[in-house]
Amino acid sequence: MVIVMNEACHKKEVGDVLAAIKQHGLQPRIISPDPRVVIGIVEEVEARLVHELRDKLSHFHGVEAIETFGASWKLVSRDFRGETTTINVRGQVIGNGEPIVMAGPCAVESREGLIEIARFIKQHGASFLRGGAFKPRTSPYSFRGLKQEGLEFMVEARQITGLPIITEVLTVEEAPLVAEYADILQIGARNMQNFALLEAVGEIDKPVFLKRGMMATVKELLLSAEYILARGNSQVILCERGIRTFEKETRNTLDISAVPLLKQLSHLPVVVDPSHAVGKRELVPAVALAAIAAGADGLMIEVHPEPDKALSDGRQSLTFEAFEALMRNIEIVSATVKSIYKGSN
Amino acid sequence: MVIVMNEACHKKEVGDVLAAIKQHGLQPRIISPDPRVVIGIVEEVEARLVHELRDKLSHFHGVEAIETFGASWKLVSRDFRGETTTINVRGQVIGNGEPIVMAGPCAVESREGLIEIARFIKQHGASFLRGGAFKPRTSPYSFRGLKQEGLEFMVEARQITGLPIITEVLTVEEAPLVAEYADILQIGARNMQNFALLEAVGEIDKPVFLKRGMMATVKELLLSAEYILARGNSQVILCERGIRTFEKETRNTLDISAVPLLKQLSHLPVVVDPSHAVGKRELVPAVALAAIAAGADGLMIEVHPEPDKALSDGRQSLTFEAFEALMRNIEIVSATVKSIYKGSN
Amino acid sequence: MVIVMNEACHKKEVGDVLAAIKQHGLQPRIISPDPRVVIGIVEEVEARLVHELRDKLSHFHGVEAIETFGASWKLVSRDFRGETTTINVRGQVIGNGEPIVMAGPCAVESREGLIEIARFIKQHGASFLRGGAFKPRTSPYSFRGLKQEGLEFMVEARQITGLPIITEVLTVEEAPLVAEYADILQIGARNMQNFALLEAVGEIDKPVFLKRGMMATVKELLLSAEYILARGNSQVILCERGIRTFEKETRNTLDISAVPLLKQLSHLPVVVDPSHAVGKRELVPAVALAAIAAGADGLMIEVHPEPDKALSDGRQSLTFEAFEALMRNIEIVSATVKSIYKGSN
Amino acid sequence: MVIVMNEACHKKEVGDVLAAIKQHGLQPRIISPDPRVVIGIVEEVEARLVHELRDKLSHFHGVEAIETFGASWKLVSRDFRGETTTINVRGQVIGNGEPIVMAGPCAVESREGLIEIARFIKQHGASFLRGGAFKPRTSPYSFRGLKQEGLEFMVEARQITGLPIITEVLTVEEAPLVAEYADILQIGARNMQNFALLEAVGEIDKPVFLKRGMMATVKELLLSAEYILARGNSQVILCERGIRTFEKETRNTLDISAVPLLKQLSHLPVVVDPSHAVGKRELVPAVALAAIAAGADGLMIEVHPEPDKALSDGRQSLTFEAFEALMRNIEIVSATVKSIYKGSN
Repeated sequence: MVIVMNEACHKKEVGDVLAAIKQHGLQPRIISPDPRVVIGIVEEVEARLVHELRDKLSHFHGVEAIETFGASWKLVSRDFRGETTTINVRGQVIGNGEPIVMAGPCAVESREGLIEIARFIKQHGASFLRGGAFKPRTSPYSFRGLKQEGLEFMVEARQITGLPIITEVLTVEEAPLVAEYADILQIGARNMQNFALLEAVGEIDKPVFLKRGMMATVKELLLSAEYILARGNSQVILCERGIRTFEKETRNTLDISAVPLLKQLSHLPVVVDPSHAVGKRELVPAVALAAIAAGADGLMIEVHPEPDKALSDGRQSLTFEAFEALMRNIEIVSATVKSIYKGSN
Repeated sequence: MVIVMNEACHKKEVGDVLAAIKQHGLQPRIISPDPRVVIGIVEEVEARLVHELRDKLSHFHGVEAIETFGASWKLVSRDFRGETTTINVRGQVIGNGEPIVMAGPCAVESREGLIEIARFIKQHGASFLRGGAFKPRTSPYSFRGLKQEGLEFMVEARQITGLPIITEVLTVEEAPLVAEYADILQIGARNMQNFALLEAVGEIDKPVFLKRGMMATVKELLLSAEYILARGNSQVILCERGIRTFEKETRNTLDISAVPLLKQLSHLPVVVDPSHAVGKRELVPAVALAAIAAGADGLMIEVHPEPDKALSDGRQSLTFEAFEALMRNIEIVSATVKSIYKGSN
Repeated sequence: MVIVMNEACHKKEVGDVLAAIKQHGLQPRIISPDPRVVIGIVEEVEARLVHELRDKLSHFHGVEAIETFGASWKLVSRDFRGETTTINVRGQVIGNGEPIVMAGPCAVESREGLIEIARFIKQHGASFLRGGAFKPRTSPYSFRGLKQEGLEFMVEARQITGLPIITEVLTVEEAPLVAEYADILQIGARNMQNFALLEAVGEIDKPVFLKRGMMATVKELLLSAEYILARGNSQVILCERGIRTFEKETRNTLDISAVPLLKQLSHLPVVVDPSHAVGKRELVPAVALAAIAAGADGLMIEVHPEPDKALSDGRQSLTFEAFEALMRNIEIVSATVKSIYKGSN
Repeated sequence: MVIVMNEACHKKEVGDVLAAIKQHGLQPRIISPDPRVVIGIVEEVEARLVHELRDKLSHFHGVEAIETFGASWKLVSRDFRGETTTINVRGQVIGNGEPIVMAGPCAVESREGLIEIARFIKQHGASFLRGGAFKPRTSPYSFRGLKQEGLEFMVEARQITGLPIITEVLTVEEAPLVAEYADILQIGARNMQNFALLEAVGEIDKPVFLKRGMMATVKELLLSAEYILARGNSQVILCERGIRTFEKETRNTLDISAVPLLKQLSHLPVVVDPSHAVGKRELVPAVALAAIAAGADGLMIEVHPEPDKALSDGRQSLTFEAFEALMRNIEIVSATVKSIYKGSN
């Protein structure tokens, strides 16, 4: 249930609405303070009580509209907030209709290597540097990242290039440490339903990049985002990165229809990761352009100067040459589709 | 095994190669007569014999190159034929780098309705009229199409608009009848492994539009196309129309990466059907544009003047208004990506 | 809609009911003649007409009960016919609570080999001989069976051992030929939605063994069976043979819950094919016993004297030794679970 | 790499082998102390070094055999330890060939309710009481369990009935608290690749019940178990609980072939959870019996006195009446299959 106040309403009028809601034993939440106050009730409310509240509040001064809706996600819903959320990170904006590119190696491997990559992607138009310092690995015997040292290299690369940095956080305990260094906290596919972790990043004042689990439905992705927003952090970016199917020629199957579907259901920006989705570098460019044409707010792409020597996921990393070519094409397609999606955001 | 003759070779030289192959008990096949002759051997050939033949033929006059390869599909393979196959139907060309649009109702429902749709899509730039006269239905009690009468309406719509027509053939017995009327024969997803039907259309001199089964891998799709080519019909168009996954918000999951993958593995043109893939009309446009950006040679789109009254699949059919808007956007995106994929065909 | 007559009703009373239904423009069908007559109306009937008919027929002599129900399958439904259908083939009964075993090679390869296998499985308690004469193959270049010669070997093996034979029919045209030889006609997984073929076998007076498509839902399997019953052939056996999932260690994933689910929804007997489901012979026995414990009416198992030399699917065929051991265990488990499922049929 | 000592070897001989391994910069681990010492090296060892070590150690006194193998899981592998691991919890043994039953409500809801259930299941032969105190929920607005209070009720139920208790642990932080109360720590499907949590329970001296993720392959499940064993806790029980597929009639699809497959690949005991797999109580009994017949070491079953009033997963909980009937049948089938699987453990 959402109560929209009119733009010129007084603080006292907002207070009266909040008090009335509390009188009914419910917990109101201010969703949007500005330009007009929007008050939400997130809890499940009985139909009878919804009716009663609606009747009562519609007579209050300052109340412009009251809406109720059915989905189990609320704060992330397009019904809750009509405009696409924009996320501003050190001047780079995600969700404003100009697709951004996050690029970098799968794992941070060395200081020099990372800086080389950062310089290269900056030069060719990327907006964010990605790189894993803490790596989740299926096998306990695989390389698990440089950890804090990796974070320090990321920060150094940011200082040199000006690119804001995004990196994965694996555990509740490490969240504060990662948040000290990173500009955006990434939650990986395997942790999409690690609810304690979602709540932990929900309480940190940094944007969160939430990857869809490889066997999670679109609804489950939205409910996981809801966990983060319900803790007060509304700076969430949704990421489609391929789902698991029977097809074996590609690592996963990119669900391209998730892009318009997520944007229809939610106001959160949507970024696509073609590298993990297809798992083969030669297929990455076509799928990246498809994502832009489908209306994605950005791409996350793996790049490595020598992919075959990468410590993790080299098979899907673009070479410098291929990345450069792709960036030119992304720019062309972005410019074209901007006019198509304009106004739909 | 493929033997490529040089451009200036004599007929007699080709004849000598064919004779030498037959001497070894194998059946040579002329894959491409022009501009240079390419001769293929499709059968499984023992490694020893491959060796022997290669040695022998490399000394023949007119032989430029000899290649052997491993995949179980051969005639459909990119290794077999480097350039994308183009298919010319009454002047409309599929596979030449300019994406085409096939549009129309799911099922042909009435003469007037079909003509109205045909006129409308023609006016807005579609190149083919689609429409089902014989409909495969999950339930034996559902509407199964107007059958021959439907084919007659299709022909009439073609006479009026000039649009070539594509329609589904369900059985071996009906194949000759449908081939009398249709310009392109469609094999539906449920029949992708109906091998008898594949062989039947393989012997008809009409292009075949082969839809990927909802449970079929990309390799299986190529092997099904191979059945058609192996019978002598090399005019095959591959169609990605969504695969079955756990996601329930969309009817199927469009496998966008199948577009570059199929084009990498095969020389056959690739068309995408976003309507059956997503099953919800509001998601069709974004996915259609994505397919073009991924390099598809065309789209198949369902349109209906009053989708909610359609006898079949109304939920996924575009309204006239939405179709018109989409066609404008397809044109914009097509013009942009043409330069990107130029030369890769 | 189903009208159940009382046991002692007269022929004339049945005739009156049939006539009254026809007067309303509907087509009645006698579902079960004995011990009590059950009349069904399969067509979609408007709610208003259902009401009217129910009111009218409830006053007819001899009518004991009238039932209406909602699923789109009707003739196959448990609501339509409470008792499990039993199918008697040359004295072997499927569906009577005693699980049967169909065994044999994937493909018929030679006369001697087939007879050797038939003798062996007969000796160890199998009730049916299976063997493919017409083989559907993913690749057009694979072995496709001995065809009519294979059928003749099957008949000879039946003459020697007395085992009734089951073999696959691939096309509408071959159906009459196969029906001349075989005791049960098998429809393979790839043809589960080949509706023309379903209708063809629906008009033949031989039991049909219908395999679930590898990506077909349980509901779709039932609707495909409905196609056969709707043509008048009610001797259908449903077969669960594994569905396609992301798991790669097994060829398919056997859906064990389909056994109780199909038996809950339908009166048709259910047989499980563990060989195609798991694709590895060492896993077949455990899964076969599981199927019996889940209440299956039988098993279809591949056996080959030298599996590694089999022309098709050798990896999943049991050796003679393993088959013998499994048959002993099937007998033990069958004897145990008989008391459990008794009465539930 | 595994070094098996002969039964009569001296402690000093074991010490010599350990020392020699350490000299090569590797970390030996005693896998099994009794009846014969087995020493393992888990780290990736270069081929050259494997060769060198094998040559050297084969001359040591007391060394009976040296084996090397390829899979990326090692400690959990059947090659590593031939006999099935047995886990003894307050006198109840898992893995000794006699299937056990863990039963109880999905979530602990009240003290009285839990005790009622515990008494009932104890009376009918269950060996463990299950119940969720910390509940993972897809939506942040759902009931998340009674937490510590729930654990206290579980302990009280144990005191009354003597049944050891199993309950889920959701986070690294809560692990020590849950371990104080519970006899077995459950890792839920959504946390199967929460590697930090796996390592946390790997350092606690309590058996761990590891559920397969709904999107995880059998290999990934084994690698997750490897995380626990690699931290020193070898008391791990694997649980198959259904995987996600396209089938919608059941909540998940129970992968019955995972039972023999896991037992072939690993020495860890395997328990099946039919309740979460099928999601419909009427299908639970057949699938439970199938699991026993497939060789499972036990079952986890949800029971509730009034399933339709349950706060979580009522649809899949058995009534008391159905549970009682099922326990009788489990006993019958267990007694039968015991002789079949005897010796294979």
